[in-house]
Amino acid sequence: MPEERVRDISEFELIDRLRMALPPTVRGNALVPIGIGDDAAAWTAHAGERVLVTTDSLVEGVHFRLDWTSWRDLGWKALAVNLSDIAAMAGLPVLATVSLALTGNETVSDLVELYRGMGELAQLHNVVIAGGDIVRTPHDFSIHVTALGHTLGGGKLLTRAGARPGDWLFVTGTLGASAAGLALLMLPADDPRRRATTAPRLIEAHLRPIPRIETGWLLAARNASSAMDLSDGLFGDLEKILDRSGVAAIIDLDKIPIAAAVRALFPDQAMEFATRGGEDYELLATIPKEGIREALELFEEDDVTVTRIGEIIERPATGPHLFVRNPDGSLEAVAPGAFDHFKAE
Amino acid sequence: MPEERVRDISEFELIDRLRMALPPTVRGNALVPIGIGDDAAAWTAHAGERVLVTTDSLVEGVHFRLDWTSWRDLGWKALAVNLSDIAAMAGLPVLATVSLALTGNETVSDLVELYRGMGELAQLHNVVIAGGDIVRTPHDFSIHVTALGHTLGGGKLLTRAGARPGDWLFVTGTLGASAAGLALLMLPADDPRRRATTAPRLIEAHLRPIPRIETGWLLAARNASSAMDLSDGLFGDLEKILDRSGVAAIIDLDKIPIAAAVRALFPDQAMEFATRGGEDYELLATIPKEGIREALELFEEDDVTVTRIGEIIERPATGPHLFVRNPDGSLEAVAPGAFDHFKAE
Repeated sequence: MPEERVRDISEFELIDRLRMALPPTVRGNALVPIGIGDDAAAWTAHAGERVLVTTDSLVEGVHFRLDWTSWRDLGWKALAVNLSDIAAMAGLPVLATVSLALTGNETVSDLVELYRGMGELAQLHNVVIAGGDIVRTPHDFSIHVTALGHTLGGGKLLTRAGARPGDWLFVTGTLGASAAGLALLMLPADDPRRRATTAPRLIEAHLRPIPRIETGWLLAARNASSAMDLSDGLFGDLEKILDRSGVAAIIDLDKIPIAAAVRALFPDQAMEFATRGGEDYELLATIPKEGIREALELFEEDDVTVTRIGEIIERPATGPHLFVRNPDGSLEAVAPGAFDHFKAE
Repeated sequence: MPEERVRDISEFELIDRLRMALPPTVRGNALVPIGIGDDAAAWTAHAGERVLVTTDSLVEGVHFRLDWTSWRDLGWKALAVNLSDIAAMAGLPVLATVSLALTGNETVSDLVELYRGMGELAQLHNVVIAGGDIVRTPHDFSIHVTALGHTLGGGKLLTRAGARPGDWLFVTGTLGASAAGLALLMLPADDPRRRATTAPRLIEAHLRPIPRIETGWLLAARNASSAMDLSDGLFGDLEKILDRSGVAAIIDLDKIPIAAAVRALFPDQAMEFATRGGEDYELLATIPKEGIREALELFEEDDVTVTRIGEIIERPATGPHLFVRNPDGSLEAVAPGAFDHFKAE
């Protein structure tokens, strides 16, 4: 029997199948009573808190390859990258809308898997998939997710604009695992590194990133002055905090937390993966030095790994504003390394 | 000098140029202090009201053709179709996010025009363009807009689910102008209808639809039991209210308000355009008969055209649930006519 494809069923039927692929609590809850099936979704927002909204798109052949990712993992990731942005503002995610641009050639069961993957992550965070749009596209299958959430501390949120000279610079977790996972996916099938016991964990870091929701709250509670999530790589993303805050930074290269598995499998590329690889979805944050000891103790209590990797300094009037300190103590300017989506090839 | 294209400048530079193409009040306001340039936008929601969120995508070659629409009109329309969904819930729009999937071959000045068009409409409604995402796509240029707003009457909103037997069925404005405008755009350049004095108005109805924001509030204030906006055509969209409300309807064909210009230029297709054409972005609503006289008088005071086109009836246990009453009084079932995005060709 040929596989049922999107063009074989009505749009109404497709929407219904996708809706039913979600766990019941992800289709709606007391806070989000109106979801899929109306002109707009409705949400009773929390009085006194700020509404946060973010959007991220994934395009086949650009952001993912279907021979590397399962549809279920793709659904997880499409939602995760958005929840990560809510985390970076110290927010609690509440709902998401999902737009699919489909060629009509996709199988219905693959799209159901996509929604199952989204549903898994949504359920973990009590997020409702509250609607969206399905449109036809000639060639490029793509997914466009918008996530909404709110702050938790009477409107207090973390932006990119608050870093001040003297603040210390931190990252959560370890860096480079996602880039290493992608590198593993690109290796020839007979490369021995693909059979390493640590390989599946690195690949999972790339395919199913974990949004650091609770860590975002902790950062806000511990007085962080700025934060963002690491999607384009440490050096590129840090530039955005530096620009928005009007400051400069020094990173201690030997302090950057790189997972042992990354160093073991890619000894020559580990530092490159950690600093320019991207897609780790850890949080990058600055915290004022005053009270830093108490802040770090509290992180330990909460079992969150936070590593100090450098400090914020005054921005020079001209010239570079991102420096690394080599293990021998010498400073070196970092060439602007932001990942540019139109020039990266 | 060759035209500057997206791939010739950095992503940062592109975002900055697009941001600057917006009127200052559209880049941020007191309610939306954090917009373009952070992980998420932040909005101080109105206590006691519900947050509304909706999303709509436009794909080149499917939803628009760049030889028919200007970039500025395209920007207007991409936002308008979203604000129309907020209107259909009786909401006040507040902010929108915009994601662009670009091939890199677009000119920067065209995209600036796109943002100017969005900015024009946004400014009219005090809407902030609060961020988004720019991604690369291999072939299909597309625009994905998400609009947020809130209710105005202590949480009261209009859904598709409230129509009851005995309610009267209304539409705002006139129908068919958008489909007639599209038909004009598709005519050969030497067709005399393209030179009709009314042609530009019909084409404008297609390219720059007006979201019926205030009319949505009036409908809610006048006790409408359900509403939606007409994007896929009267017959197709009405089916959605009937399904969600569990009712049936009779439409009086001779009551459907069709603009005189549509009848004049397309006498044989006018009814088809009005009932199945789509993209008029007028509102379709049901209002209980009790108190209907007062409701209609108030619409007149507010200078809003609202036409009664039929009534809601009990849903038969089986068989069709949408009927038209011909001018001779006979009833006729309407074949399901929803526009299906994957089968329409």
